[in-house]
Amino acid sequence: MTVERQAGPRGPYAKSAQRANDILDAATKTFSTHGYRGGSMRDIARQLDVSLTSIVHHFGTKYALLEAVLERADKTETGTEVFDFDAACAEHGVAAATLERVRSGLTRPALLRLFAILAAESSEPGHPAHEWFVDRYRRKRESLAAAFAYDQERNRINPAHDPHALSRLLIGTWDGAQLQWLIDPSIDMVATMREFFEWKLPEATLD
Amino acid sequence: MTVERQAGPRGPYAKSAQRANDILDAATKTFSTHGYRGGSMRDIARQLDVSLTSIVHHFGTKYALLEAVLERADKTETGTEVFDFDAACAEHGVAAATLERVRSGLTRPALLRLFAILAAESSEPGHPAHEWFVDRYRRKRESLAAAFAYDQERNRINPAHDPHALSRLLIGTWDGAQLQWLIDPSIDMVATMREFFEWKLPEATLD
Repeated sequence: MTVERQAGPRGPYAKSAQRANDILDAATKTFSTHGYRGGSMRDIARQLDVSLTSIVHHFGTKYALLEAVLERADKTETGTEVFDFDAACAEHGVAAATLERVRSGLTRPALLRLFAILAAESSEPGHPAHEWFVDRYRRKRESLAAAFAYDQERNRINPAHDPHALSRLLIGTWDGAQLQWLIDPSIDMVATMREFFEWKLPEATLD
Repeated sequence: MTVERQAGPRGPYAKSAQRANDILDAATKTFSTHGYRGGSMRDIARQLDVSLTSIVHHFGTKYALLEAVLERADKTETGTEVFDFDAACAEHGVAAATLERVRSGLTRPALLRLFAILAAESSEPGHPAHEWFVDRYRRKRESLAAAFAYDQERNRINPAHDPHALSRLLIGTWDGAQLQWLIDPSIDMVATMREFFEWKLPEATLD
């Protein structure tokens, strides 16, 4: 049969991968609306008209499912699927790369809402995703500080700044401006972030 | 009976006020852990060992209960119960008042978490508390812009700044720095906010 000569996974494996993907989509929707504690596996199963057992078969526990949702969202959000933020920082500097990423995020409010809700919910030390978020923010702070230090090496920004302080302040402003925009899209988030850079790093290239 | 000569509410009314207060405490705990959609009236009733009917009797709907929780928390957070932020802005300027309020907030992470979770959750336009938060942020932006303009009138800060842009940026930085601190209390939130003012408004008095 010609069908068997098609490239890529097929048959039961392709079906299983497709099912796992559908579960991740449904779980993203549920967790970004109800949070983790408020979102139930049963609700996710109902959306897809599959059994709870099928979800457990693919992901095991509810927390493992959340982790898979977050890892995939993080990859879309910061990784190579949409655009490579780290590479953009190295090539254009942190300021220009950040503005580009902010602009690209405007088309993905649901994903940004997922992180905003989960970050707030998991800030409580007893939350299952607490360590995941502590670690995510630690990595973000370190990689942005390194990117600012690289900007200084390349004479793109003032070497007198403490790159760690810059990194902390940028992450704070970014998250907070994003929350304002999620709540009220009439707030121009790109303008707020431009103002941040124009004030803080007037020497940086923004476009 | 001497008991009847005591000042203040007593008898059934005092009991009812105490019960309403207990319900608000339990609801605050539930919503700041599970969010609004994830928090159930049944769970709140169970914490207090009262019937669901008793909660409905005091607050009506789940949303009315949330609104009562938010109004009370907002009063504690921004109002006169802890300290009067607007009065502090007028007397000492926005920068010093903000730092004082940030310091006082460090003792109330649960309350700040409640706002962080609910703000993120309600950013979805279909959420019951959406309008409440849109309105809260609008009022915050306006009152901070007015306070910055007053600082300019009093020659406390550079009159060249746009007070609305300052307000937007301060709210963003504040919310974002607070989220970082809620997730990882080793991040010094007061230091981040000091840096913000030292950079953005070097002319302002901070202490």
